[in-house]
Amino acid sequence: MKSELVSRFSVSLPPSLLRQLDEMSAEKGYDNRSQAIADMIRNHLVEHRQKFGNEEICGTVTLVYDHHKQHLQATLTDIQHDYHDVIVSTVHVHLDHHNCLEVLLVRGKAALIRKIADELISAKGVKHGRLTVTTTGKDLPT
Amino acid sequence: MKSELVSRFSVSLPPSLLRQLDEMSAEKGYDNRSQAIADMIRNHLVEHRQKFGNEEICGTVTLVYDHHKQHLQATLTDIQHDYHDVIVSTVHVHLDHHNCLEVLLVRGKAALIRKIADELISAKGVKHGRLTVTTTGKDLPT
Amino acid sequence: MKSELVSRFSVSLPPSLLRQLDEMSAEKGYDNRSQAIADMIRNHLVEHRQKFGNEEICGTVTLVYDHHKQHLQATLTDIQHDYHDVIVSTVHVHLDHHNCLEVLLVRGKAALIRKIADELISAKGVKHGRLTVTTTGKDLPT
Amino acid sequence: MKSELVSRFSVSLPPSLLRQLDEMSAEKGYDNRSQAIADMIRNHLVEHRQKFGNEEICGTVTLVYDHHKQHLQATLTDIQHDYHDVIVSTVHVHLDHHNCLEVLLVRGKAALIRKIADELISAKGVKHGRLTVTTTGKDLPT
Repeated sequence: MKSELVSRFSVSLPPSLLRQLDEMSAEKGYDNRSQAIADMIRNHLVEHRQKFGNEEICGTVTLVYDHHKQHLQATLTDIQHDYHDVIVSTVHVHLDHHNCLEVLLVRGKAALIRKIADELISAKGVKHGRLTVTTTGKDLPT
Repeated sequence: MKSELVSRFSVSLPPSLLRQLDEMSAEKGYDNRSQAIADMIRNHLVEHRQKFGNEEICGTVTLVYDHHKQHLQATLTDIQHDYHDVIVSTVHVHLDHHNCLEVLLVRGKAALIRKIADELISAKGVKHGRLTVTTTGKDLPT
Repeated sequence: MKSELVSRFSVSLPPSLLRQLDEMSAEKGYDNRSQAIADMIRNHLVEHRQKFGNEEICGTVTLVYDHHKQHLQATLTDIQHDYHDVIVSTVHVHLDHHNCLEVLLVRGKAALIRKIADELISAKGVKHGRLTVTTTGKDLPT
Repeated sequence: MKSELVSRFSVSLPPSLLRQLDEMSAEKGYDNRSQAIADMIRNHLVEHRQKFGNEEICGTVTLVYDHHKQHLQATLTDIQHDYHDVIVSTVHVHLDHHNCLEVLLVRGKAALIRKIADELISAKGVKHGRLTVTTTGKDLPT
């Protein structure tokens, strides 16, 4: 960070998540929390800036969440129905009494699929979400 | 987070990185910075934990291939049956007359899942393959 | 059937029934009468065996419902999580802005699976529901 | 059967299937094999004659088969790709080292879906197959 000024702000986390962050930061060898968080942000910026355009892609959106979380499942289903044209189908695995794994199979314009994934993954209560992009196979020789 | 206590701490970042974080959070649809940062931390925890082969993980293996390719489908099915204990189910989408999208939902020890993914993705004729790792949700607070 | 011996026996039918059997077999695409009859027998064996509650069966529960219906999706998910051990996975297709097709893949004791199907199908707001029973394949020769 | 003449023909079955047929016939109280088979045929004729027309339906085709059976999986996949427009997706569960459960989610004109189901179920080596018809939900009030 050298001579650049530094911005200071405060973050609120569940105590257990903060503890796990500190353990991971130590295991990864970071000197302090801010440095670990800065690296994560840079990582996500790189992913976020990948260009998603008009080309047709296939992919999956993988979500893990607790279905007891108030309104969460209804929210996720509402979002999905808004885009039912590009969601081929959704597979739901009941992991245990609380946790669900939901995998959406999607096919459509890259930019739209990115948008849907962002909406779903950022929904409050989703524990983990990932967009995985693959090809429709059309222009890819083997 | 309801009745769970919240831990508050301060983070220092270069001002330009903070600005880019806020832009990305808004674009992804997060309500506030803390939520966006919490999601990043969970993301990195999931990735960090899969390095330890004995951790139980969930995930998907995404494959695109041409089912007319000699022996390919039989090979992929044979591999999958060898590991039927950890493959919850496989969804197959017939993309067009030639191309298939196959998504395996897997659950088991990280090292075994990585091995299965490697075998499938490296099979001759697979156009594109990805392993996406997520969590069983058990040790990840929201 | 390869090296397995074949048992040959004779059957007597009213001529009109035999003619209709042959017409149906041709329409369904069977190569010969024995194959068509073998398939019918297997069909009836699967149905016959599910009457005994302790038999392990596979099957699907097919549900069509409007996800906007108050509490319905939460109710269906709650029921499913109570039985997550026997529900392999659930596929959800967003038919249009309102209607959902949900197909559960189930595997377990016949009596338990019938109970789960009854609970789901009778939930208020489900438009149509069906339990389809099939076999685990173990005791069914081809 | 009264005064109607009777047609006699011979059937070849795997010995284990014949034995299971005889056990089931006895349990169901049939006097002889021909009577049991005649009833099965009548049962299937009733199902076969259900009218399938131009209306749009949803449904599932459920198949159980041994994927080691020569050419069977390739045959089933070829048929499915011929109709990829109406097959939304196919879920495959690896039941054990041999047996597969495959569930196709289909949506299209009733007559076409019936045709696809017949082709798949009559493929040599399929142990058990069922077409389950449901609705797209559009014209069905709750």
